[in-house]
Amino acid sequence: MNEKILTDRYDINVRFGETDAMGVVWHGNYLKFFEDGRESFGRSYGLKYLWIFENGFYTPIVSIKCDYKKPLYYGEDAYVITRYRDCEAAKIQFEYEIRRSSDDVILAIGESLQVFITHEHELILTSPQFFLEWKKKYLE
Amino acid sequence: MNEKILTDRYDINVRFGETDAMGVVWHGNYLKFFEDGRESFGRSYGLKYLWIFENGFYTPIVSIKCDYKKPLYYGEDAYVITRYRDCEAAKIQFEYEIRRSSDDVILAIGESLQVFITHEHELILTSPQFFLEWKKKYLE
Amino acid sequence: MNEKILTDRYDINVRFGETDAMGVVWHGNYLKFFEDGRESFGRSYGLKYLWIFENGFYTPIVSIKCDYKKPLYYGEDAYVITRYRDCEAAKIQFEYEIRRSSDDVILAIGESLQVFITHEHELILTSPQFFLEWKKKYLE
Amino acid sequence: MNEKILTDRYDINVRFGETDAMGVVWHGNYLKFFEDGRESFGRSYGLKYLWIFENGFYTPIVSIKCDYKKPLYYGEDAYVITRYRDCEAAKIQFEYEIRRSSDDVILAIGESLQVFITHEHELILTSPQFFLEWKKKYLE
Repeated sequence: MNEKILTDRYDINVRFGETDAMGVVWHGNYLKFFEDGRESFGRSYGLKYLWIFENGFYTPIVSIKCDYKKPLYYGEDAYVITRYRDCEAAKIQFEYEIRRSSDDVILAIGESLQVFITHEHELILTSPQFFLEWKKKYLE
Repeated sequence: MNEKILTDRYDINVRFGETDAMGVVWHGNYLKFFEDGRESFGRSYGLKYLWIFENGFYTPIVSIKCDYKKPLYYGEDAYVITRYRDCEAAKIQFEYEIRRSSDDVILAIGESLQVFITHEHELILTSPQFFLEWKKKYLE
Repeated sequence: MNEKILTDRYDINVRFGETDAMGVVWHGNYLKFFEDGRESFGRSYGLKYLWIFENGFYTPIVSIKCDYKKPLYYGEDAYVITRYRDCEAAKIQFEYEIRRSSDDVILAIGESLQVFITHEHELILTSPQFFLEWKKKYLE
Repeated sequence: MNEKILTDRYDINVRFGETDAMGVVWHGNYLKFFEDGRESFGRSYGLKYLWIFENGFYTPIVSIKCDYKKPLYYGEDAYVITRYRDCEAAKIQFEYEIRRSSDDVILAIGESLQVFITHEHELILTSPQFFLEWKKKYLE
């Protein structure tokens, strides 16, 4: 288990169409913000979806969780903190915090788990070589 | 130009998450209702996406239009009327009406235009054989 | 803790626009299917959002979880099983199963937790009277 | 009719979940990009939704149009150009271009029309004072 902590911050673009009739961002849209976070993390640390794809894999989400602490109103700015959580298995784990920009208050926290599958949708149980190299480069 | 009119009716499932902070269905979501209408039409008249795909084609939308007459509130039921509009070109045209179920009042009208492209994303300028046969079967 | 089990089944309308570039339904859209399930449950057992609203409350989601077992491809039919899980607190808990219609295989399981807030967005710590009466009617 | 041209450019955040099973951005999501464009325009020229709201109005979309020229693939960057088109009526008209960032090629063009309604959803037929003042400030 590695000690280095890889963290990314991304300013979310909250769309009017993402609010609901309660006047706040619809809860399901937070999964888009997590995705924004993952993609921004990927750009920051060289772990982009397209690069994973070119290496022969998809990394679908197999588990996701979100705890909502405070609502996000339209017009408020927010950002997502994405933290990579290392593990031995052939998995990619992220933790997320959605925070209000004006005062850094946490609005939601979440986590996701991804696995590696081939382009033929076959599950891979040992970490692919390119991923081990990525870990070596960024975590050691 | 053919005289037969092919029309389908589909009861929309309006989701809470599709409303916005104005308390009504967000305007962009009507394009999902049009898609519901196209798919229901496809099931009714044997023109499903997957069948088109199996015949070697995609039929992407190249133009779409929507005029909004009255808002659709959460909790109201609505349906979409989808009407096929025949033309000589290698195109699929549909007209749509979104109507409130309780009183049949028109909430929105729209239209879409689709073309045929191969799986390699190449545009087809003459109607594919399977589509001509479909027309023969349903319009003549 | 009550013994009666309230369960609802709802056939999901999977939209083409809900798939992603992996050719399967985008994981975030399962939260819409859970919402479909909750709303269908509400219609089946008299616990509709609008009725809750008329009683003076919103019931926002404060926690959600989804485990993805198998992908859902465009063109496949699926349904959601929604199960109410009773608890003492002023909360509404649901469990969900997304199943493929053709063979009833489980594609995803999930759960959600909702709380009661007033229209002024104030959290309520004891179950509102109308909710206690609903429980009495349906669970005892 | 005014001669000044107000234009805004906004870099779109294309999400993976916004692609569809054809491997390109689902056509309906372009309306989100138009909304991104309108909101960015609003920030650039002092015409934000919340300011309009504080002045007593909503400005719902009553008509929208989009012509799709080329697909937008996941991983490609794009931006939206939003152009205000002045008119005498109590309406807000915008034209949009979605362009690929790498070569500025136009992927889609569109337009939208908005009207003014009160918070009670009553249509306003003459331009509200605050809007006339906005026009005076920015267009003359």
